[in-house]
Amino acid sequence: MNYQMIGFVLGRILWTEAALLLLPGLTALLYREPLLPFLVPILLLLLAGLPLQRRPKQTALYARDGFAVVALAWVLMSAFGALPFVIDRCIPNFIDAFFETVSGLTTTGATILTAVEPLHQGILFWRSFTHWIGGMGVLVFVIAVLPMTDGHGMHLLRAEMPGPSVGKLVSRMSDTAKILYSIYLAMTVAEIVLLLLGGMPLFDACIHAFGSAGTGGFSSKNLSVGAYDNAYFDVVIGIFMLLFGVNFNLYYFLLIRRFRDVFRSEELWAYLAIVGAAVLAIAADIYHLFGSVAQSLRYSFFQVSSIITTTGYATADFNLWPTFSKGILVVLMFIGACAGSTGGGIKVARIVILAKTSWGDMRKMLHPNAITTTRFEGKALTDKHIRSVHLFLTVYLLVFTASFLLLSLNGFDIITTFTAVAACINNIGPGLEAVGPMGNFAGFAWWSKLLLSFDMLVGRLEIFPMLLLFAPSIWTRRIIRRI
Amino acid sequence: MNYQMIGFVLGRILWTEAALLLLPGLTALLYREPLLPFLVPILLLLLAGLPLQRRPKQTALYARDGFAVVALAWVLMSAFGALPFVIDRCIPNFIDAFFETVSGLTTTGATILTAVEPLHQGILFWRSFTHWIGGMGVLVFVIAVLPMTDGHGMHLLRAEMPGPSVGKLVSRMSDTAKILYSIYLAMTVAEIVLLLLGGMPLFDACIHAFGSAGTGGFSSKNLSVGAYDNAYFDVVIGIFMLLFGVNFNLYYFLLIRRFRDVFRSEELWAYLAIVGAAVLAIAADIYHLFGSVAQSLRYSFFQVSSIITTTGYATADFNLWPTFSKGILVVLMFIGACAGSTGGGIKVARIVILAKTSWGDMRKMLHPNAITTTRFEGKALTDKHIRSVHLFLTVYLLVFTASFLLLSLNGFDIITTFTAVAACINNIGPGLEAVGPMGNFAGFAWWSKLLLSFDMLVGRLEIFPMLLLFAPSIWTRRIIRRI
Repeated sequence: MNYQMIGFVLGRILWTEAALLLLPGLTALLYREPLLPFLVPILLLLLAGLPLQRRPKQTALYARDGFAVVALAWVLMSAFGALPFVIDRCIPNFIDAFFETVSGLTTTGATILTAVEPLHQGILFWRSFTHWIGGMGVLVFVIAVLPMTDGHGMHLLRAEMPGPSVGKLVSRMSDTAKILYSIYLAMTVAEIVLLLLGGMPLFDACIHAFGSAGTGGFSSKNLSVGAYDNAYFDVVIGIFMLLFGVNFNLYYFLLIRRFRDVFRSEELWAYLAIVGAAVLAIAADIYHLFGSVAQSLRYSFFQVSSIITTTGYATADFNLWPTFSKGILVVLMFIGACAGSTGGGIKVARIVILAKTSWGDMRKMLHPNAITTTRFEGKALTDKHIRSVHLFLTVYLLVFTASFLLLSLNGFDIITTFTAVAACINNIGPGLEAVGPMGNFAGFAWWSKLLLSFDMLVGRLEIFPMLLLFAPSIWTRRIIRRI
Repeated sequence: MNYQMIGFVLGRILWTEAALLLLPGLTALLYREPLLPFLVPILLLLLAGLPLQRRPKQTALYARDGFAVVALAWVLMSAFGALPFVIDRCIPNFIDAFFETVSGLTTTGATILTAVEPLHQGILFWRSFTHWIGGMGVLVFVIAVLPMTDGHGMHLLRAEMPGPSVGKLVSRMSDTAKILYSIYLAMTVAEIVLLLLGGMPLFDACIHAFGSAGTGGFSSKNLSVGAYDNAYFDVVIGIFMLLFGVNFNLYYFLLIRRFRDVFRSEELWAYLAIVGAAVLAIAADIYHLFGSVAQSLRYSFFQVSSIITTTGYATADFNLWPTFSKGILVVLMFIGACAGSTGGGIKVARIVILAKTSWGDMRKMLHPNAITTTRFEGKALTDKHIRSVHLFLTVYLLVFTASFLLLSLNGFDIITTFTAVAACINNIGPGLEAVGPMGNFAGFAWWSKLLLSFDMLVGRLEIFPMLLLFAPSIWTRRIIRRI
């Protein structure tokens, strides 16, 4: 383990967070709100990062270091990011504020607040801005703006980017990160503009663009996007959520005019097919509630888009929909968005790989001598690659089961318990029953909130960085004392 | 495909079922009940099997043939086995009777009957006897008593026996099958004797021994084993359920004094550890309901034993227990019993293999150059073996999800829908809410009952025979016309 280099990267991350906090601070200034909630954390972040700014001679980072950096970075950012809520006294309890910040950074969107409208504008901005930061990744951002890890950034990117495999778009990691962030920024701005054109105030437009860009789901309204009851907003936000759930590599391919690669993306077609089927099935199922095809399609499309991308915005209380619709939404919660997007869940790419591999293996049962290769996105899948997807699925299920059992000690009903874990580990936000779209997580005990925070981080970082943080062998040679 | 040989084996199975129906027929005779419900099916089975009795020259059976024989055998046996219920008019609807028979043969124990006590004794006997037949397997029985497939029985046994791998105990398949059935019979008789010693009437003792031996769960009482409210019966049945959930190979090892192999069985220890932990956790959780340590342990032990072995007997309405206890029971439903036992579920062996493999793979993430081999039951696991366990898990989840979505169209609440699928695919019987231990499956639509029957067969035959029945390539060369 290269502890000095780990410390150095963490130092850069703390200072980056300090810089990012200037934006909500500025918002507070504009609205003439107290500035202390932002000045104090900025100062603390600068101080904490100060001793870590000396660039070590040895800058190599290996897979283990990558996991450690990513896991620690996210925990530290959440802890410091919780301070504005505590100092503002809108969430006086630190664990509650930590839960809310983890939920923001991991783009989950689960909240412990019963009402968001009384909050200060600066605080609301920070709450939603964490979605935007967490969506594309903190380390991706650091790599993009601070080219200090050239040649060693791959392990960081791999540990932070969602999906079964991470491809470099261009040869330099920092350029790849810059391209991703530029696309991300451009799309966010496009959504803000479209919402403004529909008459949404600038502040609200930013909040909802952050929420859909990061596929997070925090809103400035108690009733979420449903508060506007505006079909135009529903369509714009619905489409943008879907767009942010697509692998960002495809947008890069569009930019460099490699249209064929986009058109032939298996994951994209599977994603669109699942969305299409789910929208139609739910629209048919809820038709009797809305009484018109257009309205049923509108609410169905928005909710499917919101849930499969793991955003969690709501325009209707789907907790009251029929079992078939709820069942589809629960399944979409687990499928999740595309790999390499800002969305959570198991990821469409993994589902496609699992389905195709199983199909091939079952064919082999019938024809033991047949030679079968399973291809994905035009390439033959190696056994190692397939094994890693199976590993993900298995460990995901084990963590899910353990969390479900622990959380059931909190005494909520089974659906609340099950969907609370599903909503957190898949980074969605709302579940069903007590944690449904009109509910919140305030009723859980403090230890449940910590458990669910862990699950959100597990989901966002795709399990392994968080779990390996607890492996004894990662901490041999007294790292604890050094950080 | 060797269609003639498939037909020949099926013919033997039909005649075997005819012979097995003599026993409930005899019961009906003893109780002076109508005999037609048994005579008609016996006659039909003999007639249907008649054209299939000519032994073909070519007797080789390959993997594909094994899957086809097993799947067809179970469907045919269920269809003919449903006739006594229809002719007796206790279950006049054929689909309901088919559901009940599939539930019996697959040792699920899910029922569409609201009350069993008014049934004829002969019918009750047949209903529970299907558990006993299905527990060890129909084809195992045919191989044991009719040594016509010598040298080719391995594919049949492999397709019918639960667990990730099937070992021959002795070199001849028919001898292996005989040994397994002898142990099975001896243990069933032991349970009957112990229940008689406690004062249970002979008929009831047989019914409950059949139910626990097959880990099925059909009772002759509306309140299941709880009807007796007798701690001795609870303990005897609880222990025997656990014993029938152990891999039968271990009993053979005991017989031939290979104690070390038994003592070192990883699966056995894992099974006992899970049972022990679950019993203690639930006992602590339900202590406030019963008010005494002994009573809490008694009800907890019985329910844990009943659910992990996928039997489904109940001595209390666990639907009313706290969420933590229900959560544990739901997790146990999926874990299931040991491989090579009469129990269902994913099987402890697979869980242990999945956990150990994941652990090894995660170690490899931290130490990419380390050479790791995962061992199970003293042997190194091959990649092929691990892949087959992953395949099982993946296809299991896919079938589960598809069934859950389809069943949700029936409009029951989510917990009922989810646990109904879980209870059927894991061959348990009762779930929660409407299908809880005091509920039943009568309220489902006819297509739901067919779907759940399919799930029960999928669970009992460990997925692949049933799924591959739908593969077009298994039926090339006009088999349909020939059978």
